[in-house]
Amino acid sequence: MTKQIIITEVALRDGSHAVAHQYTAEQVTRVVRGLDAARVPYIEVSHGDGLGGSSLQYGLSGTNEMELIEAAVAACRNSKIAVLLLPGIGTVKELKEAAALGVKMARIGTHVTEADVSAQHIAKAKELGLETVGFLMMSHMAPVEKLVEQAKLMESYGADAVYMFDSAGALLPHQVKERVHALRQSLQVDIGFHGHNNLSLAMANTLAAIEEGAVRIDGSIRCLGAGAGNTQTEVLTAVLDQLGCQTGIDLYQIMDVAEEIVAPLLQVPQEITRDSLVLGYAGVYSSFQLHARRAAKQFGIDARDILIELGKRKVVGGQEDMIIDVAAELARSRAVVL
Amino acid sequence: MTKQIIITEVALRDGSHAVAHQYTAEQVTRVVRGLDAARVPYIEVSHGDGLGGSSLQYGLSGTNEMELIEAAVAACRNSKIAVLLLPGIGTVKELKEAAALGVKMARIGTHVTEADVSAQHIAKAKELGLETVGFLMMSHMAPVEKLVEQAKLMESYGADAVYMFDSAGALLPHQVKERVHALRQSLQVDIGFHGHNNLSLAMANTLAAIEEGAVRIDGSIRCLGAGAGNTQTEVLTAVLDQLGCQTGIDLYQIMDVAEEIVAPLLQVPQEITRDSLVLGYAGVYSSFQLHARRAAKQFGIDARDILIELGKRKVVGGQEDMIIDVAAELARSRAVVL
Repeated sequence: MTKQIIITEVALRDGSHAVAHQYTAEQVTRVVRGLDAARVPYIEVSHGDGLGGSSLQYGLSGTNEMELIEAAVAACRNSKIAVLLLPGIGTVKELKEAAALGVKMARIGTHVTEADVSAQHIAKAKELGLETVGFLMMSHMAPVEKLVEQAKLMESYGADAVYMFDSAGALLPHQVKERVHALRQSLQVDIGFHGHNNLSLAMANTLAAIEEGAVRIDGSIRCLGAGAGNTQTEVLTAVLDQLGCQTGIDLYQIMDVAEEIVAPLLQVPQEITRDSLVLGYAGVYSSFQLHARRAAKQFGIDARDILIELGKRKVVGGQEDMIIDVAAELARSRAVVL
Repeated sequence: MTKQIIITEVALRDGSHAVAHQYTAEQVTRVVRGLDAARVPYIEVSHGDGLGGSSLQYGLSGTNEMELIEAAVAACRNSKIAVLLLPGIGTVKELKEAAALGVKMARIGTHVTEADVSAQHIAKAKELGLETVGFLMMSHMAPVEKLVEQAKLMESYGADAVYMFDSAGALLPHQVKERVHALRQSLQVDIGFHGHNNLSLAMANTLAAIEEGAVRIDGSIRCLGAGAGNTQTEVLTAVLDQLGCQTGIDLYQIMDVAEEIVAPLLQVPQEITRDSLVLGYAGVYSSFQLHARRAAKQFGIDARDILIELGKRKVVGGQEDMIIDVAAELARSRAVVL
């Protein structure tokens, strides 16, 4: 493979989950300076759940994200700062504010079956002169045809690239291949991939995506991200170098940023724990875990059974009320068997 | 894929490196009981460098490995205990001792180009009535034909299975595929794979090996192993289940052992650090790292440059004296350029 791969570093956005959204402006400045010196093309900076995510429901930011974005922009000489916006959480108001601070890329994400809610935000981002990426989250939950249909919608709204997100780290490499292949067949714009490591397959899935033509890849330095974290940027840089792909990133420099700047920020290193493994295996959002644990206690069953059943039913964020129903049903069906 | 995959758990041998060879008999008993209840077929217990490894050079064991093996055998109802023997470190004497304690499998390993030194040990293990596995370490260092030739030697000595070890975590999935494919073409016995995670590819490489017909796989619970650790057993169990492969292992039980018994043993969780990434990228043994660092300081160059050059020259364990030569050469060539 001799390809140019464009990497976006997400440790200051997805990785915000790993530090309970407590990044300080000083930390962001140091990390961005390091990434910029390593020539990482794009660096995403936002609350873990995107612009406007700071809330009791999603977790309060320690520092206002606009301050963090401002610090990030100021620390860049080469890299471009990106922001994430999930329609329903963030609004056009915050997008404008971020653009005014010097952000160069907007990433607009929706659930894999709900691309239509991104139309106005993608249009607005383009109008603001931002490079605009659309992304489809929990892409394992939709059949391939649906994923392609939704990606085409984002393309039609003006997205410069469309990513598939394996948000729960649930996909297997052959499933990634099939999806990226189908996307490549049907779209003109760049295809991107964002993987999570819950099944220890973030790197495998990333390589599978690249093999099928994805050219934009999300990485997270030292694996910092929700769940078991993301494809580890400094390792990805090394692997792509071995494969003869170009990233433009300085390998030693990115290794040093990981070891000397990012690792010390972490109180708990990213590992594949029982909790993150269950999420990947079940294919559900991490926000279900606490609810499932409570319901499991109430009904005397294993929380894992609940999560796996929720995954089978393709329950999505916002449907947390179903967790009790599923737990009750499982408890009843067991009582009958016994 | 509908296949039966036979897993050997190596956390109590390879993982011994991760705890500086300080496992206690009580810890081994607890871990083995858990693994046994989860129905893991084989559990390897030895010093990290195999029987007889306890030494100033390789690290002194906190508890005599024969005590640990005895405790492991006593804790098993279903699982079988395996030991590792590297000819040159361990001897037939220790193999007999282990067999007398109730060990059921001997794993005899050599450098990928030195299978011939395993002949007597494989024969002896068979004579002792042990199931016997041969394995070829640092398999990335030999061309495919050489690997096959050496594997055939081990088969000819009587090995019941031959593993390829990606000891430095240096191989990429397509390279694993090519190697396992070639081994399958030429050998009658089972092919096995043992991966390390230095390039975040342990799981990807394991799946690549299985796809090409490997049926014996090493896993390490919670990733416990040398370098960045091994293919994570509990995650592998989940992934193989998703792929429709049979392991006979109870998924919830193995997850619980990982979380409740093994994770608390670890002072430092297994991560892909700068050091382990460099080893995988360079394809060299971890024992080179300290020497390279010293030489780098002496000659005012980057230790990574030394390790990468050692990898290119395929320098192996025992040739540590070359490290200074390489460092001096690199320093000279830079002086000329400047």
